Amino acid sequence: MSLREGAFGNATNLVCRECGTEVPLGPDYACPECFGPLEVAYAFPAITREEIEAGPANIWRYKALLPVPDDIEQSPNTEPGYTRLLEANNLAKALGLSKVWVKDDSTNPTNSFKDRVVACALSAARELDAKVFACPSTGNLANAVAAAGARAGIRTVVFIPSNLEQPKQVNSAIFTDSLIAVDGNYDDVNKLAQEIAAEEEGWAFVNVNVRPFYAEGSKTLGYEIAEQLGWRLPDQIVIPVASGSQLTKVDKAFQELIKLGLVEEKPYRIFGAQATGCNPVSTAFKAGVDAIRPVKPDTIAKSLAIGNPADGIYVLDIARRTAGAVEEVTDDEIRDGIVLLARTEGIFTETAGGTTVAVTKKLAEAGVLDPSLETVVINTGHGLKTLDAVSDKVGPRATIKASYAAFEAANIS
Amino acid sequence: MSLREGAFGNATNLVCRECGTEVPLGPDYACPECFGPLEVAYAFPAITREEIEAGPANIWRYKALLPVPDDIEQSPNTEPGYTRLLEANNLAKALGLSKVWVKDDSTNPTNSFKDRVVACALSAARELDAKVFACPSTGNLANAVAAAGARAGIRTVVFIPSNLEQPKQVNSAIFTDSLIAVDGNYDDVNKLAQEIAAEEEGWAFVNVNVRPFYAEGSKTLGYEIAEQLGWRLPDQIVIPVASGSQLTKVDKAFQELIKLGLVEEKPYRIFGAQATGCNPVSTAFKAGVDAIRPVKPDTIAKSLAIGNPADGIYVLDIARRTAGAVEEVTDDEIRDGIVLLARTEGIFTETAGGTTVAVTKKLAEAGVLDPSLETVVINTGHGLKTLDAVSDKVGPRATIKASYAAFEAANIS
Repeated sequence: MSLREGAFGNATNLVCRECGTEVPLGPDYACPECFGPLEVAYAFPAITREEIEAGPANIWRYKALLPVPDDIEQSPNTEPGYTRLLEANNLAKALGLSKVWVKDDSTNPTNSFKDRVVACALSAARELDAKVFACPSTGNLANAVAAAGARAGIRTVVFIPSNLEQPKQVNSAIFTDSLIAVDGNYDDVNKLAQEIAAEEEGWAFVNVNVRPFYAEGSKTLGYEIAEQLGWRLPDQIVIPVASGSQLTKVDKAFQELIKLGLVEEKPYRIFGAQATGCNPVSTAFKAGVDAIRPVKPDTIAKSLAIGNPADGIYVLDIARRTAGAVEEVTDDEIRDGIVLLARTEGIFTETAGGTTVAVTKKLAEAGVLDPSLETVVINTGHGLKTLDAVSDKVGPRATIKASYAAFEAANIS
Repeated sequence: MSLREGAFGNATNLVCRECGTEVPLGPDYACPECFGPLEVAYAFPAITREEIEAGPANIWRYKALLPVPDDIEQSPNTEPGYTRLLEANNLAKALGLSKVWVKDDSTNPTNSFKDRVVACALSAARELDAKVFACPSTGNLANAVAAAGARAGIRTVVFIPSNLEQPKQVNSAIFTDSLIAVDGNYDDVNKLAQEIAAEEEGWAFVNVNVRPFYAEGSKTLGYEIAEQLGWRLPDQIVIPVASGSQLTKVDKAFQELIKLGLVEEKPYRIFGAQATGCNPVSTAFKAGVDAIRPVKPDTIAKSLAIGNPADGIYVLDIARRTAGAVEEVTDDEIRDGIVLLARTEGIFTETAGGTTVAVTKKLAEAGVLDPSLETVVINTGHGLKTLDAVSDKVGPRATIKASYAAFEAANIS
């Protein structure tokens, strides 16, 4: 297969994160030498803040730093990103921190950060001339793939566990006529996806065979935070850990911005957030070991329920290198985190965001986060997708008759 | 009560839309002379495209054109707006139109255009020193008020019919400890809100006593569309009609942009979209009469179910003045509209958006919309809020065992 000139922008090749072997750009994700994960390498040109600021209010303002062609805006896509970075003074006060920002990815096109990574995977699928755009997923990723594929006019096939709740099925099936229910759990679905990717020609599974391109999309969270802070890096940042990819890509983004001279170099601390019901990275961090021992997930934070996280070891490296940490919270703490963020800042987050807020609270209370430094908290998705988690926790304060007398008697004013 | 200097920006007074009586800026909504609706009047300074473009990626880039103070960004708010305007070529093809754009307000902070109007009402509540920020609502408005109030640190009280589905209650109760369920239908709740607004000191009901300020927020939809088209007005635009306020404010925005020299004057046609189950404006338009006869709503498009729309007569004026129309569609057509938009453009809209898409289709098929002209369709809210409307329409294509053999046998590739 031949690639068109500039198909992957300033990307030059794939490189193995373990042994450094270089591989040409293509639908590969494992090193042919050592089976380590491949990631995208670049030769960046000089780029200025002004050039970026003149771009669109979505992730393509950073297109020069992504593995996408220079004409990416001309190809139909969901135009995700450039979401709100909210100064969260109420939350800061509640947590006893001097300054907190919330990066709110719940306002992306399909209401999670997955729209960012899927947009990059879609570009790769297009440039690689894929016939089918696919994924295994239990939620956010399924929504993002099905929506992006519909808009791009590429056929989508989305695999889900057949016992997935019906509302979650609807939220993907609305976009695609090929939602496929698979008898089994997520691991079974994922394994099937890998088999299909290996056997079938022209299938781009976003999180399997085009994963190196897909994963680069998470860098835009880091770029946006830095730009929205006025082109500087935050002091402390708390990021949820599922596969661990997002956390490693935010770190990669910060390092790239420093190298490109777009921000000043300064120390920053990266913290990972997990649920106690799926805590392999937190466990390894606390034990001071380098190896991740897989777990069987059992938590309401389904979008974080990856028992054997591919990038877990890199998360450990980064948390240690930056004087950060990886912490975990219980399902009850996650529910409390969702309500806390809603009541203080008017943001309704999913269970993954509740995890991040609750971990931030735990780290603040333990004095691990420095209260005099500013902290950025990433909200990765929308509470409407995990409504059940809090439906027993909140409700009407009173039920009254429809009269002013009843209103007065209820002492609401 | 005294207002601080510049509390309402370049707004000068309220003016009656019927008799032109002028009233000072304050918590008033009905003309003291004729009981006609009051709206905000301004003395705009000269303003350039560049000044607007240098503003933030939210509605405050247009703050000079809104009844808000110049330091509005410093007051905590949800920072809504500047949502995607997507070039919708797949939808255009499906409708037989040459060019269609979708203005997608489902990605606002609480996933509907209501965040725009509530942000303006919040500013008014603040400047008027209100103690309580309140509304009667069955859905989108309740979410927006509860979230904005939480973030602003002002007490919110949100009134809903007590028979509202529990998921919708959760989506507001997550933000406020004062969700009040009222035994009765929406009209009963609304009437109670008017009584409370009249009796209690310091209550700002966004859609009652600060309604003139609130309603101005919808102008930002018009500003954004023009700016995102490259500072020009669209040829044709289709807008859902509930109270009719949004449609009239988009027209007001276009007229202001012309007067300010920010766009060239040109003809544009405005079309209103209603559900057959709540069609008072469509009925009057088709009958060629000026009076709106109230109806008892019965449609799945709950957010459009206003049987006696306050701005209905102005909608008629605008549709006739601009060579537009007001059209209606059945609940089945609305459901089909939701699926059509999702499958063509990857946008999951609520029933109101389904109405707008279905009306666009009907007008295109009837040759009322000129296929050679470009058409903008406004999507006002998110399908996750009205999931039930389509949950019987879409689902998995197949259920298979977790094996490659089962995948092959299912003939999916």
